[in-house]
Amino acid sequence: MQQIFENLRNKKPLVHCITNYVTVNDCANVILACGGSPIMAPSKLEVSEIVAISNALLINIGTLRSEDIEAMLKAQKTANQLGKPIIFDPVGAGVSKFRNDVVTRFINEINYSVIRGNASEIKTIALGKATASGVDADEFDLITSKNLTQSIEFAKVLSKKTGSIIAISGEKDIIADDKKAYVIKNGHEMMTRVTGTGCMLTALTAAFCAANPTNILKATACAVATMGICGELAYEKVVKNDSGTGSFRTYLIDEISKINYKKFDYAKKIELF
Amino acid sequence: MQQIFENLRNKKPLVHCITNYVTVNDCANVILACGGSPIMAPSKLEVSEIVAISNALLINIGTLRSEDIEAMLKAQKTANQLGKPIIFDPVGAGVSKFRNDVVTRFINEINYSVIRGNASEIKTIALGKATASGVDADEFDLITSKNLTQSIEFAKVLSKKTGSIIAISGEKDIIADDKKAYVIKNGHEMMTRVTGTGCMLTALTAAFCAANPTNILKATACAVATMGICGELAYEKVVKNDSGTGSFRTYLIDEISKINYKKFDYAKKIELF
Amino acid sequence: MQQIFENLRNKKPLVHCITNYVTVNDCANVILACGGSPIMAPSKLEVSEIVAISNALLINIGTLRSEDIEAMLKAQKTANQLGKPIIFDPVGAGVSKFRNDVVTRFINEINYSVIRGNASEIKTIALGKATASGVDADEFDLITSKNLTQSIEFAKVLSKKTGSIIAISGEKDIIADDKKAYVIKNGHEMMTRVTGTGCMLTALTAAFCAANPTNILKATACAVATMGICGELAYEKVVKNDSGTGSFRTYLIDEISKINYKKFDYAKKIELF
Repeated sequence: MQQIFENLRNKKPLVHCITNYVTVNDCANVILACGGSPIMAPSKLEVSEIVAISNALLINIGTLRSEDIEAMLKAQKTANQLGKPIIFDPVGAGVSKFRNDVVTRFINEINYSVIRGNASEIKTIALGKATASGVDADEFDLITSKNLTQSIEFAKVLSKKTGSIIAISGEKDIIADDKKAYVIKNGHEMMTRVTGTGCMLTALTAAFCAANPTNILKATACAVATMGICGELAYEKVVKNDSGTGSFRTYLIDEISKINYKKFDYAKKIELF
Repeated sequence: MQQIFENLRNKKPLVHCITNYVTVNDCANVILACGGSPIMAPSKLEVSEIVAISNALLINIGTLRSEDIEAMLKAQKTANQLGKPIIFDPVGAGVSKFRNDVVTRFINEINYSVIRGNASEIKTIALGKATASGVDADEFDLITSKNLTQSIEFAKVLSKKTGSIIAISGEKDIIADDKKAYVIKNGHEMMTRVTGTGCMLTALTAAFCAANPTNILKATACAVATMGICGELAYEKVVKNDSGTGSFRTYLIDEISKINYKKFDYAKKIELF
Repeated sequence: MQQIFENLRNKKPLVHCITNYVTVNDCANVILACGGSPIMAPSKLEVSEIVAISNALLINIGTLRSEDIEAMLKAQKTANQLGKPIIFDPVGAGVSKFRNDVVTRFINEINYSVIRGNASEIKTIALGKATASGVDADEFDLITSKNLTQSIEFAKVLSKKTGSIIAISGEKDIIADDKKAYVIKNGHEMMTRVTGTGCMLTALTAAFCAANPTNILKATACAVATMGICGELAYEKVVKNDSGTGSFRTYLIDEISKINYKKFDYAKKIELF
């Protein structure tokens, strides 16, 4: 995984982000912090040109409006044509018919390098069209020691079906292709008390993949473990300074800007299944 | 007021926010910090479904565009039908005919649980349709010891007229229904030197009300005092660390994530009129 | 330049910003930190009224969509009619035909007080219509000791052509009218690792110009040097606290909220050519 890190630092990849307006600033800062370069360009009149100069495309539907769909589709089709990796964050998949329909359409029309979400979002994708109007996110539940084997199998099957790396975030993270899966135990509960840590992870993943387009599975696993490790380090600082969630967010980006392979290798908790 | 706090911590209420793109990240982080869960969903194609699963709806017109009005109306009408509290922040009411017209329309068509703004914004609402195109915000002035009795009476009358809790922010805050009013003296001047402290207070209010739908007056008073107390604590940290307004914003969210009833009860400066 | 500072502190100017959704919060906080007051109002239905009560207008095309153009043009034409300074940040000029076309149109139809961008963006403006569809940003390169004389001359010529103060950001900054140019060497490399430091500088420039409408060249030079100095002070704090780019952003706004003429005068590295 050392090479994955070195590629990111050396290539300074450009990541085109079409993302929500809640956490867009954090996503840009995360991409810069890890050594990439972000460009946020939402207009359908320019997305194709922007994709053409970028090393990866990030699509996040957090605050989707119908007006955005055309630009997202255009950007994604261009990226597919040009062979640029697309990282998809189906934020809120399962909460409304609108989101489910868009997610279903995207999954049908676009080839994703990575689909990253929480268990409920990924489950919505897996169940797809058939149940698009009534997905119950609670059934699938969080990934625990108890259902880990099942969850890994689920991720591998979905990876085979979609042709994408599947990254499921939770207390334990699963990153799978159709044959193997990394299970990662880094991270801290406080990450759930700051908005956008999921979006930030997708941004980090996009930067890692942009610099490592031929090694998407490992790049994604690196990104997920890096985010978890930086969350742990940020939490240590919160405890030390007796601060709270506002500072945690700042420390998290601090740690992403300071991480290197040596620190990563020391702290990573990754298993291969 | 202890019960108000306990309900917030126990219920982890979901707050649907349709709000401006300037301070939306701060609003999400404030809701998470206090123990709630935010969802920002602006599309008219899904707002009704999102309101249905939420415990409260927040409407903030800070960067309103005409395209947003339909979604806001749809969300609000659904919330009214389902009996979910709506917290309204009429940002900039009084600065343009466009905003005045929208505010007038909303006030006429929607039943709000809480209307929260500064003195100029609330005055614009009080004067309503008749003077919608030429409201002079300076007339009303800030709430001072001198005009406190008058201001309280004004708030009570407006509460009776609108059927909403009226929360007027300023050096002293007034939170009133048609019969009684809380006057709160917590807060610090530095809160005016960071963008979005008003929006953040509205978000905090929405979270408190979402967890306490049968006790909106007290929940709003709690939220307003909490914000003020956290502002005071954040300012102490700025002085201690010789930092500035950037850190103040971070410390403010830190303090919101660490406040509890004991600290609140010790620091609150609330009077009932 | 002391007077420039004093005017800013005394006038508390209102700056109307129509800007991108990535860094809009930072821009608002920078304007507040330096002593101004921001208003973000993007709707074409109110921009003329907002311009009328503002002391300056900021236009930033970072995340431009075609729907925004009409409001931007309306706001700018009103500002020109009323003689209010307009500060233009042509973010990403050169990266797409869409941006080039909009920039060309704006430059042709609007009189700007200040145009501020990096070397590539300013070069795109200089080359204008003729090469709008294929500008190569790398040719022009960064401003270095080697090409400084050339770059200054370039800025003066563009200032004469446009009637605007030209501010080119880089390792060395150039701020020029048609006859003279300030070269500023303040700043720190870490500013390039945080999103929006360019946008924040434009916001700071707008606040300085809003308070000093009859002295735009000097006001812009003050703003640019202030930003650089605050970047240096923020970096010192990062080193001292062993933090990273997340904290750097917070410290930067801290320093802007604490800068005064005495600190500025001591740290400024300004030469007049």
